[in-house]
Amino acid sequence: MNRSRLEPLGVPASEYAYDAAERKSRQPTALDRWLVRQIRERYGDDPVRLALWDEPDVTPRPGTAIVRVLDSKALLQLVMNPELHFGDLYSAGRIDVRGDLLTVLGVAYQAHAEKSKLRRWLDRGRQFAAPDLHESRRNIHHHYDIGNRFYELWLDREALQYTCAYYPTAEATLEEAQQAKMHHVARKLRLRPGERVVEAGGGWGGFALFMAKNYGVKVRSFNISKEQIAYAREWAKRQSLQDSVEFIEDDYRNVSGEHDVFVSIGMLEHVGAGNYRELGRVASRALTKNGRGLIHSIGRDKPAPLNPWIDKRIFPGAYPPTLREMMEIFEPNGFSVLDVENIRLHYAKTLEGWLERYEQNVEAVRSMFDEAFVRAWRLYLTGSIAAFVHGNLQLFQVLFARTGDNSIPWTRAHVYGGG
Amino acid sequence: MNRSRLEPLGVPASEYAYDAAERKSRQPTALDRWLVRQIRERYGDDPVRLALWDEPDVTPRPGTAIVRVLDSKALLQLVMNPELHFGDLYSAGRIDVRGDLLTVLGVAYQAHAEKSKLRRWLDRGRQFAAPDLHESRRNIHHHYDIGNRFYELWLDREALQYTCAYYPTAEATLEEAQQAKMHHVARKLRLRPGERVVEAGGGWGGFALFMAKNYGVKVRSFNISKEQIAYAREWAKRQSLQDSVEFIEDDYRNVSGEHDVFVSIGMLEHVGAGNYRELGRVASRALTKNGRGLIHSIGRDKPAPLNPWIDKRIFPGAYPPTLREMMEIFEPNGFSVLDVENIRLHYAKTLEGWLERYEQNVEAVRSMFDEAFVRAWRLYLTGSIAAFVHGNLQLFQVLFARTGDNSIPWTRAHVYGGG
Repeated sequence: MNRSRLEPLGVPASEYAYDAAERKSRQPTALDRWLVRQIRERYGDDPVRLALWDEPDVTPRPGTAIVRVLDSKALLQLVMNPELHFGDLYSAGRIDVRGDLLTVLGVAYQAHAEKSKLRRWLDRGRQFAAPDLHESRRNIHHHYDIGNRFYELWLDREALQYTCAYYPTAEATLEEAQQAKMHHVARKLRLRPGERVVEAGGGWGGFALFMAKNYGVKVRSFNISKEQIAYAREWAKRQSLQDSVEFIEDDYRNVSGEHDVFVSIGMLEHVGAGNYRELGRVASRALTKNGRGLIHSIGRDKPAPLNPWIDKRIFPGAYPPTLREMMEIFEPNGFSVLDVENIRLHYAKTLEGWLERYEQNVEAVRSMFDEAFVRAWRLYLTGSIAAFVHGNLQLFQVLFARTGDNSIPWTRAHVYGGG
Repeated sequence: MNRSRLEPLGVPASEYAYDAAERKSRQPTALDRWLVRQIRERYGDDPVRLALWDEPDVTPRPGTAIVRVLDSKALLQLVMNPELHFGDLYSAGRIDVRGDLLTVLGVAYQAHAEKSKLRRWLDRGRQFAAPDLHESRRNIHHHYDIGNRFYELWLDREALQYTCAYYPTAEATLEEAQQAKMHHVARKLRLRPGERVVEAGGGWGGFALFMAKNYGVKVRSFNISKEQIAYAREWAKRQSLQDSVEFIEDDYRNVSGEHDVFVSIGMLEHVGAGNYRELGRVASRALTKNGRGLIHSIGRDKPAPLNPWIDKRIFPGAYPPTLREMMEIFEPNGFSVLDVENIRLHYAKTLEGWLERYEQNVEAVRSMFDEAFVRAWRLYLTGSIAAFVHGNLQLFQVLFARTGDNSIPWTRAHVYGGG
């Protein structure tokens, strides 16, 4: 299970020299000090202060943080492209954070909002990306096939949901909130016993098995992650649900057959905006006349590409769409949007739950991977909390049916126990 | 109160010669008969059959209807541009319908869906319309200033709501459903006593007064319809609410001051797609940091202009947007969409309620206007039922707040009596 050093992240090993003593022996140059002054003039030093390796390593007062840059080259990289390089430098231990990492990332997200128009324009290409099947497989393999054991360490223990949970109350546990999320989606879709559900992007199978068990439906679940499919099939057998749930190792574009319900939780982020119309076509082809569907996805209030470091190291090819962009799934394919819910804050809370367990099990992670991996995932989870708290990311659930279908529910009261 | 013949509709009086006997004495020509055959070949004659004036006037079997065209020129106009001319010809009594008018209009809406791509392209200009203040005043005057007494005849008696109601149960009366709609919106907005609400497009003031009375808020309500504003001010006095609700005869573009809530029920249809970004700017300017807003509007699943007859005779300049088009209000103005609800079927039921009362009070309408007006409004109400039933029109309620505002509600359970 122990992976070769850094392989999952793809960072060249030469970047990871932990000889801090050697680096610290060198004194900062005039250029180093000038760069630090520039940064402090622009961003201030409260609540986050930039420090070089020659300063004493002190504990910051509560609510503030110190970002310690530990060599000249790291400083230069940070200045040139902080969004891309901070992640690698932090992972490699060439940048350290004293105090709360979340504070640092919150400040970074606020600074990000001031990004130049030129940069936004340069980023636009991403919005039209349409990965083909080969690219999709490579992207999905990068993230989801790094070991089921790893995800088991910090996801909920009952359904292994690697998507936003739903907290009916602030006191709900991660397990309760993931169960509530699945019920929430199932109620929105009004699942009835015997119905045929097709799932696009089924993860480790937790939701497919949940629907079969709790709502008596037949599920066909598509996924291109080999490791997840193997896990899901095994899990179905353990629960004796292999007759109700079929796990199919194939792409959403190859969905076939007729279904009452189309559901996709957390796959759209990997589809690419250029493929949305086709995704809608697939849903339309897959559904009966009175079929209905739900797409649950990370999104944005304004178009923007994913953070470049997350794109490079964590989620290659991922793109969180705006609601306007998502309409390309529905509008050209004869669908009517019935309900959109934005549960952004639930994702911040979900990620807090994941991060807490991640830290509780960090020794187990360390035994599987190396320190750079441990730090990279800490940064990714913490940065994602900051993004959802600050509104850089949203979470949309979009319920839809065919235009003119009058079998749709009259109100949404049934989702909340009424109706 | 009795208006000059046809003035509200603007149809030249010369078009309205009711000398049916004279017309009927003429026999259909070979061209007339050929045209009817063409139409029957294309659309069939079940459930709706086209008949000429020389055929016996029979009662169709239940569930079917007969469209009787009563002169040659009417037939030619109908063939050339049915969407535009059917309304005028029906209003003038040059086309009659035997059986259920709704059946006829349902068939028409299905045929409309097959409209050619060229025609759609020609229609596109409408999507960028941006009426200025002068045009807006003229458009609004045309529809809303035809007499408060007229609307009182068939709208709900408690709040005079000329917008989609909300039926918590199928048994709710029109009055109950309009009260429920207002509570539904107020709950989504989480109105709290003492808060400052600005309303854009307040109709006769029913919702503004409702909010002040039931939720203890201060309301400033903007409207450019002179007759409605006069009515609303009088109504506020009768309810002793003139200190809580201010009715301002001005355009939404001139909204000033700071508010906790921005709400607009049924105005967006008149704003014009070219003005959406400005509407969002107005809402942003009008709201505090933690302000929230709701826009309730007729919409579409796909972009299309309003039916040309409705545009010409009933609602000049109106345009029902798609959700994608509506995003131009929110996305460039730093807003986050929290919740979208499509309550299309509620508008069909609301319109059924209105039509029923309209027919109950049709003699009173006749005493105010003329027969063409009576028929035109019957057609408009019936056609609107068909449009909502068949999904040509949608009804969207969009709840929004500023991006990154974390004072937003955790779930929507509070709307349904929970939370």
